[in-house]
Amino acid sequence: MKKFVNSVGEILHESLAGFAHCHRDIVALDSDFRFVRRAQRKTGKVALISGGGSGHEPLHAGFVGYGMLDAACPGQIFTSPTPDQIVAAAEAVDGGAGVLLIVKNYAGDVMNFTLAAEMLPNAQTVLTDDDVAVERSTHTIGRRGVAGTMVVEKVLGAAAERGDSLAALKDLGTRVNNSTRSMGVALTSCTVPAAGRPTFDVGDDEMEMGVGIHGEPGRRRVSPLMPADAIAAEMVSAVVEDLGPNSGQEVLLLVNGFGATPMLELYLMYDAARRHLETRGLRITRGLAGNYVTSLDMAGCSITITLLDGEISALWDAPVHTAALHHGI
Amino acid sequence: MKKFVNSVGEILHESLAGFAHCHRDIVALDSDFRFVRRAQRKTGKVALISGGGSGHEPLHAGFVGYGMLDAACPGQIFTSPTPDQIVAAAEAVDGGAGVLLIVKNYAGDVMNFTLAAEMLPNAQTVLTDDDVAVERSTHTIGRRGVAGTMVVEKVLGAAAERGDSLAALKDLGTRVNNSTRSMGVALTSCTVPAAGRPTFDVGDDEMEMGVGIHGEPGRRRVSPLMPADAIAAEMVSAVVEDLGPNSGQEVLLLVNGFGATPMLELYLMYDAARRHLETRGLRITRGLAGNYVTSLDMAGCSITITLLDGEISALWDAPVHTAALHHGI
Repeated sequence: MKKFVNSVGEILHESLAGFAHCHRDIVALDSDFRFVRRAQRKTGKVALISGGGSGHEPLHAGFVGYGMLDAACPGQIFTSPTPDQIVAAAEAVDGGAGVLLIVKNYAGDVMNFTLAAEMLPNAQTVLTDDDVAVERSTHTIGRRGVAGTMVVEKVLGAAAERGDSLAALKDLGTRVNNSTRSMGVALTSCTVPAAGRPTFDVGDDEMEMGVGIHGEPGRRRVSPLMPADAIAAEMVSAVVEDLGPNSGQEVLLLVNGFGATPMLELYLMYDAARRHLETRGLRITRGLAGNYVTSLDMAGCSITITLLDGEISALWDAPVHTAALHHGI
Repeated sequence: MKKFVNSVGEILHESLAGFAHCHRDIVALDSDFRFVRRAQRKTGKVALISGGGSGHEPLHAGFVGYGMLDAACPGQIFTSPTPDQIVAAAEAVDGGAGVLLIVKNYAGDVMNFTLAAEMLPNAQTVLTDDDVAVERSTHTIGRRGVAGTMVVEKVLGAAAERGDSLAALKDLGTRVNNSTRSMGVALTSCTVPAAGRPTFDVGDDEMEMGVGIHGEPGRRRVSPLMPADAIAAEMVSAVVEDLGPNSGQEVLLLVNGFGATPMLELYLMYDAARRHLETRGLRITRGLAGNYVTSLDMAGCSITITLLDGEISALWDAPVHTAALHHGI
């Protein structure tokens, strides 16, 4: 296993400690490692909390800060955070206007965030399930929540900052999630440290089309490797046909790397996706490429499209100051 | 070769096109792909230009924008840009106060930037050579310029923005370079697309200590893999002993990934380096971790330390708005 590690049991704590020190102007780490919260607490607004298994960095802790999340709860690698982590985070950041939990649709996350919500006095939940690849997966009933979660967190973060109510944020989050679709492809497997070997076998000339962010199976195993244009075409088709936009629709294009794919290739995929979207008459007015919602050391990427309107575009553009996303401040 | 690619000959142009579209609010791409420049030209200041072989993204084009570079010249992968690229970039961005060329110390880059400088009416050069691993390498006489180049570009970018003269910038750049040292380690080789196979062989339980950013040999081949703490200790020792700081010295710590190492591991390495620096009595007052100066799809990282003073710290903190580095605006 080719990783920077001291002991498998300490990876998460050591990484969180490094993250918190590196970004101590933005975040603070709970002394029991239960959550990462903003360094400066803000009252009078709805507190946004997300979380999930670790191994997807910078999701979620990298999105804690002004204009996005108030706290994030990191579970062990690919393991949901516990309800008591989520409750502790909520108690630390609830500024009196309630707590919105943003939850990726995986069985463990849904169960633990639901349990936590029942223990909190004023909490609502937004579920993300943007992955069009499969309708049911290893850890999921229904669609998986993947890179589109970042879009939901950004838009809701801006809306919370302007003072939206808990009910309004839940409605907006549901709307953004329903306007957002993703699909991914893996060129290599990830390796979970505790397992010490790749999660799945994939040959030198094979790839997994529609892969999940834990290495869950996708739609099909492809061999030989397809050209980048054909890969982008298949992912764009799946996403756009599911969304069913009108011609001329404005969209956000997010090309997300899974952790081991460099920017040279992500921008090449961005260009391929752009051409396919423009051929379909769509207008890319917002764009982003980078390793944002990763799968440990997996090589591969996903394409996410969000249908934009004036409100969602303005919230996407609004100032944000987090470790992993920063603009307008 | 597991990469997103259509044809090897088109990788660079397609990737640059995607980059330029994604960040069209910040940058513009020359129609002949010779350079990337700021979308908004700024006159009355010294123009900062860098460049080098591609495959190190986001270096250098990702650092074009307010507070950092005015233009970047991308060569083919691991190949220096040509003098005419550099001259064309200078002509596009020279705002009347001269041009400063920031050049990593590789034979090809030094030759081509020197030729370009001789063709320009008012140009100076700052050479970066921060890699302490070896004194002479495959493509280099003297030390290699690696991740510290990013620090030089950020500090000089802020100084140019405040109106420093060409001569002052050359002096400052030399001072920052002399205050900056790096060392890297590779867990895997990179694969140059045109070669189609790994640049060097490294076994499943081996690593290359002191590797260069093109996969050049380092100080020694290590087997078995060392724990992260021991790796960080060796790199921190090499860097700090070369710099010879006083106890209590303020430093910048940059943990830079080589392209295929995820943030989970980079933050773990950041924490390990932090502990070693603090044990040595150094004070980390600025920090950064991420994939900034990469080697295609190499797994590995480097540690860079810059000795800080009030001026360099203030310039590091100054507002910057580029594709890959953004704060304070």
